[in-house]
Amino acid sequence: MPVPTPLPSPDALAKARLLVAPSLDGGLVRDLERITGRDAAPLESVPPPSDAPLLCVGETLPDALRTNRLLWFHSVNAGTDPLFAGGPWPGSALLTRTVGRMGERIAQYVLAWMLAECQSVPEFTALHDRAHWERLPSELVVGQTAVIYGTGRIGAAVGRLLGACGVRTVGVARTTRFGPAPGTARVVPGFDRVIGAAEDGEALGGARWVISTLPLTGATEGFFGAARFAAVRGATFVNVGRGATVYMGALEAGLRDGRVRRAVLDVLPREPAAPGDPVWRLPRTVITAHSSGITTDEDVSADFSACWEAVTAGRRPELTVDPGRGY
Amino acid sequence: MPVPTPLPSPDALAKARLLVAPSLDGGLVRDLERITGRDAAPLESVPPPSDAPLLCVGETLPDALRTNRLLWFHSVNAGTDPLFAGGPWPGSALLTRTVGRMGERIAQYVLAWMLAECQSVPEFTALHDRAHWERLPSELVVGQTAVIYGTGRIGAAVGRLLGACGVRTVGVARTTRFGPAPGTARVVPGFDRVIGAAEDGEALGGARWVISTLPLTGATEGFFGAARFAAVRGATFVNVGRGATVYMGALEAGLRDGRVRRAVLDVLPREPAAPGDPVWRLPRTVITAHSSGITTDEDVSADFSACWEAVTAGRRPELTVDPGRGY
Repeated sequence: MPVPTPLPSPDALAKARLLVAPSLDGGLVRDLERITGRDAAPLESVPPPSDAPLLCVGETLPDALRTNRLLWFHSVNAGTDPLFAGGPWPGSALLTRTVGRMGERIAQYVLAWMLAECQSVPEFTALHDRAHWERLPSELVVGQTAVIYGTGRIGAAVGRLLGACGVRTVGVARTTRFGPAPGTARVVPGFDRVIGAAEDGEALGGARWVISTLPLTGATEGFFGAARFAAVRGATFVNVGRGATVYMGALEAGLRDGRVRRAVLDVLPREPAAPGDPVWRLPRTVITAHSSGITTDEDVSADFSACWEAVTAGRRPELTVDPGRGY
Repeated sequence: MPVPTPLPSPDALAKARLLVAPSLDGGLVRDLERITGRDAAPLESVPPPSDAPLLCVGETLPDALRTNRLLWFHSVNAGTDPLFAGGPWPGSALLTRTVGRMGERIAQYVLAWMLAECQSVPEFTALHDRAHWERLPSELVVGQTAVIYGTGRIGAAVGRLLGACGVRTVGVARTTRFGPAPGTARVVPGFDRVIGAAEDGEALGGARWVISTLPLTGATEGFFGAARFAAVRGATFVNVGRGATVYMGALEAGLRDGRVRRAVLDVLPREPAAPGDPVWRLPRTVITAHSSGITTDEDVSADFSACWEAVTAGRRPELTVDPGRGY
């Protein structure tokens, strides 16, 4: 069992100076000042020598602050790897992070693009630009099937929202850890049912939507290759996971032969895509510049505020990071 | 109490000939033949003289068929007025209608355009066309407020779907019949709360979305005028009701001074809009050619099939029309 980093004492917290990364927006800094009831100084400047403990908000920790004076560091990002790259974590400091509303945001992105396709949003926008009155067909997502790869926090948020709109949801668990035991149906919140990745062929054939929330690991690189796209029968492919999980040649072949109806790609193997990148010329595809799961200043404010409330009440914040695991 | 039209007897139904309007699509006719287990003949032709009862599917009833031979007429539309225009209803005939999934369709249309705005769908589509990689901001509808005019079947379907996506919903009941009694909160399924139309000013000021599902009656013509748009503070206006409920000059003023953020108009006072109609040049507006609540062939098939199932089981179909009321 790793020893949890200690919670700041009320006394230390009262005396702590607030240091913020210079990259933070002025509005966010004012929020942090309001929440903590003190003025902020830039994180990069070494504060005047004193015993005052330090409460820092930023992305990376300057080496000069890697001392026992560090009381609490709040990361503006969910990924805290950069904080461990520069040396061992000062053991006495609490580390918390911003997770924001990434699951909700990604789920709304997915639903927005599904409904945009069903309701011909881009096509109506183009007709409007031509001042042309014409009825276009629409399609109801109710009763359609979405196969959602990844049954973790983000996949489940997508499944929950689609389910609330009447879509049948099949989660695909990549590892046996989440997959159903043979002969049993595993109930995972957010999905109507969950299957293993080795048995996804039939589900792909019956799907109107294939949605990936998979992270990039050694095991998921090129996960969506020729075999998977060959099993698709007219589904639209939405990728909100990581670009390198898709073998782009196989996706292109699927789009060209019509098995893949459309593609909505928030992520690409190479980002950002240059204007000359052939990926822009894939048929019936839209690319959205890795925008589906952004963390906003509001998210940082809200998550820091929740941490502050917990710490001042003597509770450990839910967003505490275990420096031994890194999340 | 009106006397309900009698249900066809199993014997009469077994002998009945199927007549379909010539305007029906071939696929739909094949569905009707499959459901009833018999071949269809065109509704316009007078069937050979015999005692065979008639089962008709169409929009209007030719005078020649306004006889006691008419066993059952299924309307492909929700509005059955044209059937009563030509003379009294043959009292022995059952009349059913197609309602389809208008509430669901309109609700998905509304949600699609809300999410398209929040997720910058038209803007990303335009960026894609220019092969330009750029992050755009997004907005979560969770926690936003939608004021929905009309608390009937369609308004409630919109409210239910938005509520399922985390939107706070305020229904506005135009008549005191549906409005809350003074000093009481009225609970209407599909809405977080319901207010009367006379007290909507504060709700309009707090709304991110103002959605109208109002029908056109003497009382709703020009209902959305200068006073209502003046109370709006940055909401997007979505009209899926009837065009003439909006005084277009007031909407334009609201768009120009910024109180109305955007407008999504499925309906207009004059439809269809000609290419030269100034309505196409309203700022930040999209017009969608009265497409949100279409009735499809699938709807006709599904509703007729449900009626057929009920009648053959000796039950009165839910979609039975009372010829005395007309719905």
